[in-house]
Amino acid sequence: MTPAADLPDTFDMAQGKLTVDLGAICANWRDLSDRSQSDTGAVVKADAYGLGAGRVSQALAQEGARQFFVATAKEGAQIRKALGSGPDIFVFSGHMAGDTDDMRDAQLTPLINSIDQMLRHVEALPGHRFGIQLDTGMNRLGMEEAEWSALRDIALAQNPALVMSHLACADDPSHEMNARQLANFIAMTDGIDAPRSLAATGGILLGEDYHFDLTRPGVGLYGGLPYVDARPVVTLDLPVIQVRDVLPGESVGYSNTWIASVPTRVATVSGGYADGIIRAMGNDAHMWAGETRCKILGRISMDLIGVDITPVEGEPETLELLGLHQSVDTAADWAGTIGYEILTSLGARYDRVYLTA
Amino acid sequence: MTPAADLPDTFDMAQGKLTVDLGAICANWRDLSDRSQSDTGAVVKADAYGLGAGRVSQALAQEGARQFFVATAKEGAQIRKALGSGPDIFVFSGHMAGDTDDMRDAQLTPLINSIDQMLRHVEALPGHRFGIQLDTGMNRLGMEEAEWSALRDIALAQNPALVMSHLACADDPSHEMNARQLANFIAMTDGIDAPRSLAATGGILLGEDYHFDLTRPGVGLYGGLPYVDARPVVTLDLPVIQVRDVLPGESVGYSNTWIASVPTRVATVSGGYADGIIRAMGNDAHMWAGETRCKILGRISMDLIGVDITPVEGEPETLELLGLHQSVDTAADWAGTIGYEILTSLGARYDRVYLTA
Repeated sequence: MTPAADLPDTFDMAQGKLTVDLGAICANWRDLSDRSQSDTGAVVKADAYGLGAGRVSQALAQEGARQFFVATAKEGAQIRKALGSGPDIFVFSGHMAGDTDDMRDAQLTPLINSIDQMLRHVEALPGHRFGIQLDTGMNRLGMEEAEWSALRDIALAQNPALVMSHLACADDPSHEMNARQLANFIAMTDGIDAPRSLAATGGILLGEDYHFDLTRPGVGLYGGLPYVDARPVVTLDLPVIQVRDVLPGESVGYSNTWIASVPTRVATVSGGYADGIIRAMGNDAHMWAGETRCKILGRISMDLIGVDITPVEGEPETLELLGLHQSVDTAADWAGTIGYEILTSLGARYDRVYLTA
Repeated sequence: MTPAADLPDTFDMAQGKLTVDLGAICANWRDLSDRSQSDTGAVVKADAYGLGAGRVSQALAQEGARQFFVATAKEGAQIRKALGSGPDIFVFSGHMAGDTDDMRDAQLTPLINSIDQMLRHVEALPGHRFGIQLDTGMNRLGMEEAEWSALRDIALAQNPALVMSHLACADDPSHEMNARQLANFIAMTDGIDAPRSLAATGGILLGEDYHFDLTRPGVGLYGGLPYVDARPVVTLDLPVIQVRDVLPGESVGYSNTWIASVPTRVATVSGGYADGIIRAMGNDAHMWAGETRCKILGRISMDLIGVDITPVEGEPETLELLGLHQSVDTAADWAGTIGYEILTSLGARYDRVYLTA
């Protein structure tokens, strides 16, 4: 996709090239922000879903995002380095033992999940900014109703920066769980002064009732479902190491799971499950040589994949696994998973190229 | 496993802890070396199967390994930094466009896969050390018989450092493919002066006929099948963020896939598919609190997992996913994959602790 002149000097034709379109991420954020009847933050945990938390956070901050969300304090400290002071960085796991230095030095805002965490926080960092995470039915993170009842007055008196919860079934608008969690959230927070947040990408699409004061899009920024109108963000091109002609009866790859029935041209590309190309997608997966669709043959191995390029003219230099022809959700279907896991699995060996708007 | 006093200062109780037993890796190498009627190298591609190529290569070099194998030139350059000059570093993808600087500067030995690569190599780096990779039936990397026949005399005149091939079905000793590839390798290389190599871990276990001058164990070093006598190498402990009581009828996790039928104590641990805990293993997977086996509940999410700790006394600080109770191959069975993929998926967010012998 990118002309060769734009490649960094270190580009190595034996490594895959992952192109991350920061302009598309910003466009997705703007659109989800327009749909939010509230402020709009950004979830950049798990290295911004595998795409590079530093670069992504900087681009979104420039676009106007002021509230960032991460899973752990260590992630927060890394993102603070990229963002400088100013934006809020909220930590979903709250205030864990060992987090205090990062919380203080990087000015992170833990989302307190339990009375235990609340005690740890006020003892270790009295007066330090915090938010509250409530459980409204997912039973994963956040205070239960009884815990919250006991702590509520004390916590609210200290002006929490945010009171939030998370939806378990927002990807399915017809699921009755959504309305149940919404009712629980309202019952637990109605009338409080602190800003409230319930919706991630799926919740934004459920409509205004779910937006409260702040939405927190994650996967939609990165081009994944359930945000069907997302602009695609990633392109993954794998270099061809070698091309060979395989005769009927010959096998390709480990355990001889694919055997040629007709003469077949096979390209071996550099990339495999060690690069996050999930091994389970092997049976159904395809790659593209320009506009020609090419089937993956046999098992995906650790660093290599065999591909049928019989219909391709000449020898392609690279084949495309993710891009305009097929999305992270297409690849997820092959692997029996969700686009989120395709993104977070993207490996460390790729040359990463960032496109700006 | 490790006493708290041994933890690095930066240890964060909100991150998982991956313990890599370098002593066990070295013991596995010694044993596979004892079983090899030949020299014994080490495959350290894909960041030493996810365990840290620098530390692993240094430990194995100290143990006596002198030949290291990587997938790409970039990996080779990183390992040269860790090893210093001396040991051979062979590159399976051969000499690709863009590799020349790394090949020269890091003194890497490409395993030439085709006449195209041979031409590129002698043109770019005349006189520079190289090896030859032959295809003996896997149709993945290496020269075909016809290509090798054309090049053989010219190549051998330049004293290749190694002539090698790779077995497709060595994990299954009963597969007829093993004998067929062995016969092809002998036919293609009999009588040459250059050192020969055919066997990785599975090939070592097939017996002396497969060993030639150098074996190249990979997965066996890291505790994975097919080397059943391997010493376990990795321990993965995930911290508990929060514990809650869940009533019958309540659900845990995304999409409400698990619903309590009896009162259940649920721990939420920090770790998820963004850390390489493959989402597909959710339905069958367990973790351990000391000697108590605890079932994973509902879907594995990006950064969090719910676990049934009803039978556990008190509140455990961490739960163990990999270790003496269950191996990478156990986890692989849950995910419908192989231990190799469990290893190479191990994520970047863990605190990594290296145990030496």
